[in-house]
Amino acid sequence: MFDLLLRKAAVATMQDGSPFGLVSKGAIGIAGGKIAWIGPDAEVPASGAAKVWDLGGKVVTPGLVDPHTHIVYGEEGLIDFEVLSQGGQRWDLEPRGGGVGAMVKRTRAMSEDALYAASRARMSRLLANGVTTVESKSGAGLDKDVELRLMRISRALGKDLPITVISTFLGAHGLAPEYAGRRDDYVDFMCNEVLPEAVKQDLVDQVDGFCDKVGFSHEQMGRLFGKAKSYGLGVKAHSDQYTDFGAGALVAKHRGLSADHLEFASLATVRAMAEAGTVATLLPGAHLTLHETRKPPVEMFREMGVPMALATNSNPVSSPTVSPASQMHLACYLFRLTPEEALRGFTVNGAKALGIADRAGLIAVGRSADLAVWDTDDPRGIAYAIGGAGCLGVVKSGVVVHKAILPEFARA
Amino acid sequence: MFDLLLRKAAVATMQDGSPFGLVSKGAIGIAGGKIAWIGPDAEVPASGAAKVWDLGGKVVTPGLVDPHTHIVYGEEGLIDFEVLSQGGQRWDLEPRGGGVGAMVKRTRAMSEDALYAASRARMSRLLANGVTTVESKSGAGLDKDVELRLMRISRALGKDLPITVISTFLGAHGLAPEYAGRRDDYVDFMCNEVLPEAVKQDLVDQVDGFCDKVGFSHEQMGRLFGKAKSYGLGVKAHSDQYTDFGAGALVAKHRGLSADHLEFASLATVRAMAEAGTVATLLPGAHLTLHETRKPPVEMFREMGVPMALATNSNPVSSPTVSPASQMHLACYLFRLTPEEALRGFTVNGAKALGIADRAGLIAVGRSADLAVWDTDDPRGIAYAIGGAGCLGVVKSGVVVHKAILPEFARA
Repeated sequence: MFDLLLRKAAVATMQDGSPFGLVSKGAIGIAGGKIAWIGPDAEVPASGAAKVWDLGGKVVTPGLVDPHTHIVYGEEGLIDFEVLSQGGQRWDLEPRGGGVGAMVKRTRAMSEDALYAASRARMSRLLANGVTTVESKSGAGLDKDVELRLMRISRALGKDLPITVISTFLGAHGLAPEYAGRRDDYVDFMCNEVLPEAVKQDLVDQVDGFCDKVGFSHEQMGRLFGKAKSYGLGVKAHSDQYTDFGAGALVAKHRGLSADHLEFASLATVRAMAEAGTVATLLPGAHLTLHETRKPPVEMFREMGVPMALATNSNPVSSPTVSPASQMHLACYLFRLTPEEALRGFTVNGAKALGIADRAGLIAVGRSADLAVWDTDDPRGIAYAIGGAGCLGVVKSGVVVHKAILPEFARA
Repeated sequence: MFDLLLRKAAVATMQDGSPFGLVSKGAIGIAGGKIAWIGPDAEVPASGAAKVWDLGGKVVTPGLVDPHTHIVYGEEGLIDFEVLSQGGQRWDLEPRGGGVGAMVKRTRAMSEDALYAASRARMSRLLANGVTTVESKSGAGLDKDVELRLMRISRALGKDLPITVISTFLGAHGLAPEYAGRRDDYVDFMCNEVLPEAVKQDLVDQVDGFCDKVGFSHEQMGRLFGKAKSYGLGVKAHSDQYTDFGAGALVAKHRGLSADHLEFASLATVRAMAEAGTVATLLPGAHLTLHETRKPPVEMFREMGVPMALATNSNPVSSPTVSPASQMHLACYLFRLTPEEALRGFTVNGAKALGIADRAGLIAVGRSADLAVWDTDDPRGIAYAIGGAGCLGVVKSGVVVHKAILPEFARA
């Protein structure tokens, strides 16, 4: 006897062996919050189910894993949007009152309650768009109090909403204005005061930083990574987005989880990532909004077997979105991923990027029943539509936590 | 006494005089299907209302006008998606079993009932995404029976769904395979057999054609336009998408409603359009999926006062979408429209492109109460999000015909 049975579904299990691991005309039986049975709809066990959801041929996928977001922040970045959409470049943002610095200012100015409410609204929409596991970075505070506040909110969202939240400390997102000209001191402050407190309060799962000529150096990132690893935390970096800085190779050297962005990653970097098992997390949203022309080396990743994850990169400056399907679409058109690679990026490889491939990103018997249902009858159809296919419903730990209204208007 | 009162709304009326014609903290009173009152929420008349919808500060806009769609067709174009997203060009589609020819084959093979059902599902989603007036083109049949069938379906959708449908005859979308090498004969057939029958059966409002080196010549389009005008029908053309063919100027010469696409429109064409009052309908979806690099001359349109409309261009080959908000976003990033121009493109200027500016695309007292509510509290926010903001609800002729579920998850 199942608690919930999804019937007449195109089940994209994402298991190896066939495109999308597809069970067409399939069904999924759920018991005790876990997947108990997967198979052809015609062979559903006779034991029955407390609840049945007939999907009418629609696609069901693993609940999506979004492995790179900055979703906890203050107000939206409408100034950034106006500057960038008019052809402005990232260096035009700050003079116009936008950019990361302005985002930090807006975030610092907001009360914890207001910040929680705004972030919760965004996270809820991300969830309703199919995401059941999300990475949530700090980095919009750049001081001790606010960074801790942001991680506290990430933790609270993971408790209050039916979504698994991985909390990442990104104090090294940029240089706090108070530390202008004292970048090394800032890194020391993050390593010796903020991170230890976050660990002490159990607010942090992973550590990230912006490794770039205009960000933090290899040496500085190395110190941060060393500290993170002393606490047993996985590491990652914003890498090689604007120049070939060897940041992806640095992450690989530290056996990090993922290097993210990677438009300028070199052959040596890709090779190092392949050897270390570091995931390449690609972020097409920022690529579009920042007018990037250089593409991440997708063919090298493929040839060398570097797993490619995708993420919304949800943030107010360069990737204002709570829609993973929109990013799958862009990943196909901008980076030439196949529709299957795009979905893999938000499922199995998204989970790999977070070091949780053993428990998320796959539909398999015994796994937590985290699922997303899509408004298409072909798994390629999720990325096919501009803006992505609509998400019709979300199951978290076996419970239907969201169902969209299908616009079937009554016949006049 | 109002039938319906929308309260606590950011009302983007799109009336001239201020950005978005915005009434912040506004309200709209509706009576007899029409807008009866617009003003500050604090000054709502005491007469009361049968129903009140509190928008909680969200934006309400005119119901969108989508002035260019090919939404009546057979199966989706997943082959086209695979070819184009892997970097293939439009001329790679046909050899791979895709393109317009394959779409025509799939459409001809479908029964009228199946075609109606598929098109109705798409149209319903377009409506749920904020569209209350839509242009629907034939052109996926290219023979008499199927072209009439497509227009019949457009008419039926306008009757069966709470959406106004303008039916456009696009027999000159491409050359029917039966007429290979006999392009002039095909135009004669369209002019003398198909169009007259469509007029006789009252299936057609406007006439469109593909005016291009690989489409129909100025002379051929001129014949078609002449015939259309003899029936009092407005004309338009797919213009200057791939080369500077002077197609926009031809439309202007015929005092046509709109020239559409226009990536290669010349100064002379823009000038002719300005003089004739012909609208420029821009289609960012196809621009993205076909990897176009040449941009439509937006600055020239601005300087010469050519109104710019936007449209989804909903079709399975080059613009698979039912989301106008996704197109507003792309129009900003790809064509550098401002957020206000983007919304204007789907409201006042969309209506101009269809020759119905006197009755659609504006929130004004006395107008039909066609409205769309958006998941943002700033009208710039509709185009800001990648994939566009979510549509929270649609009002057609004063009736709430769709309401999305806001994912406000219960606190654990």
